[in-house]
Amino acid sequence: MSTREPGSRLPSWRPGATRDAVLHFLDEAAAVPVAHRVACFDNDGTLWCERPTYVQLDFFLDVLRQRVARDPGVARGEEFAALLSGDRAAVDALGLPRIGSALTGLCAGISPEEFTSLVRDFMGRARHAGLDRPTRATTYQPMLELLDELRSLDFTISVVTGGGTEFVRAVSDDLYGVPPELVVGTLLQYDVDDPDGSPSLVRSTRLFGEVNEGAAKVGNIQTQLGRRPILGVGNSAGDRQMLAWATGGVGPSLALLVEHDDAEREFSYAGKAETFAETEPITDVARRLGWTVVSMAQDWETVFAPLG
Amino acid sequence: MSTREPGSRLPSWRPGATRDAVLHFLDEAAAVPVAHRVACFDNDGTLWCERPTYVQLDFFLDVLRQRVARDPGVARGEEFAALLSGDRAAVDALGLPRIGSALTGLCAGISPEEFTSLVRDFMGRARHAGLDRPTRATTYQPMLELLDELRSLDFTISVVTGGGTEFVRAVSDDLYGVPPELVVGTLLQYDVDDPDGSPSLVRSTRLFGEVNEGAAKVGNIQTQLGRRPILGVGNSAGDRQMLAWATGGVGPSLALLVEHDDAEREFSYAGKAETFAETEPITDVARRLGWTVVSMAQDWETVFAPLG
Repeated sequence: MSTREPGSRLPSWRPGATRDAVLHFLDEAAAVPVAHRVACFDNDGTLWCERPTYVQLDFFLDVLRQRVARDPGVARGEEFAALLSGDRAAVDALGLPRIGSALTGLCAGISPEEFTSLVRDFMGRARHAGLDRPTRATTYQPMLELLDELRSLDFTISVVTGGGTEFVRAVSDDLYGVPPELVVGTLLQYDVDDPDGSPSLVRSTRLFGEVNEGAAKVGNIQTQLGRRPILGVGNSAGDRQMLAWATGGVGPSLALLVEHDDAEREFSYAGKAETFAETEPITDVARRLGWTVVSMAQDWETVFAPLG
Repeated sequence: MSTREPGSRLPSWRPGATRDAVLHFLDEAAAVPVAHRVACFDNDGTLWCERPTYVQLDFFLDVLRQRVARDPGVARGEEFAALLSGDRAAVDALGLPRIGSALTGLCAGISPEEFTSLVRDFMGRARHAGLDRPTRATTYQPMLELLDELRSLDFTISVVTGGGTEFVRAVSDDLYGVPPELVVGTLLQYDVDDPDGSPSLVRSTRLFGEVNEGAAKVGNIQTQLGRRPILGVGNSAGDRQMLAWATGGVGPSLALLVEHDDAEREFSYAGKAETFAETEPITDVARRLGWTVVSMAQDWETVFAPLG
């Protein structure tokens, strides 16, 4: 058992069964060998707000608008025209793979360092319109406190995201204290050029493997981290396999599923990613399997990280 | 400058220009932001002995012999027959990709945990015949001391190997203090099965990307670590691009190339991997580009880690 009073840990979590389950896991994990203390967190909707749009989409739209300002002809492409006009039906009809590929193409041919600069520039000025706060302050304070507790126990903490690996790497240290090698996401291939013995490396438009959702998260955790987590935290059907994987090993483990049921302070929506619909709502899966469901409305005293 | 006396650092490195260059880099690196303190080490021939055969090949041969003991028919396969008879010409004629694929197939269908157990069992008993010491003690003591110095400077240390990622991960913490997520090697894909909501994961025979040598090392460092190293350490032509990459950025950097010129204590051979021959010997490339060449015979007072 921890010698600290329960009240001094996870202060933004309200007392109750959910916080007790998390604290109980932390106490148990303290007896697990350090090499097995691995925690995998989904990003969008788990560590920060994903509504009304993914931050990564906001970023690429920002890049697109800057490109169009310099070269108006770019706006005539079918995918970009649909995005810029806000024509949701047209976007849906084109489909996420095609839209995603067009947006990825905007940054093809630039170096990783240039891409990181673009993301950080955007993050320095982006605001969430509906929530009236900087985008960088749409992270969930209770989750940041959980990350701190895990770090104090020498956990290896990974962000396992359906988003682009390099996009999340550009913000993960600043937002979560997670270094780039511990971000497992949808990977882009690089083109390595080595004409004169000085290699250079630029972004391509080809994925390395598949989109990091569902079963792919389990495979990529193994290929990129090499260890099974004992804590899995997510919020959507795309996290189901990861959470099942986290609780499928030997010894103490915990699966935490965030339920977005707080229309007043955040958003209220069914906890499944639109593009990875399953027949059973993920919250029902969670309750059936004995996972711990975190009700944003009931379990969190504070939702967002402080401004500034 | 470090406040420690030079003599107290890198004690197995003999005084001279090579050690001075390494110490100078360490002193400079202390002023580099921690996020940029990334070091990438090749494994075979750089951190431990690769002659007369790669340890990974010894391991797979051991697995093969155990398999044949249970099922003698396995030995009739063309690749295995060539390997078991020690017919070097036949092995060469079949080619590394085919031999490698056959050996990888021996462990197809088993879980990552089972594979790790096989490797650790082997490493617990394997001996290097020529050097008359346990295989696990064929690591280079001067490199272990360099790893310690880097760790004291909060470097992120990665092993970037042409060998199988999972093979090296099974030994990297024990041998080098490097956790699995910081091993960048040749990746195998996993088959994820999820029939009833309890995902399982087994080794396939398919590579994820290509063999991690040459330009692939640069691409994989970016995709898997997300940061450019400022220290690159290698010994073969397969490390050329990685070392050029490490020294191609802004700020202090160092490329170290181990020259195997010590027939008395280890082996003497041209510093290029047989399967990645280039027209120019890698030691000539190194001297031309101003890399620091480490003469095993001249620069190292002690070669191997202590027994036991």
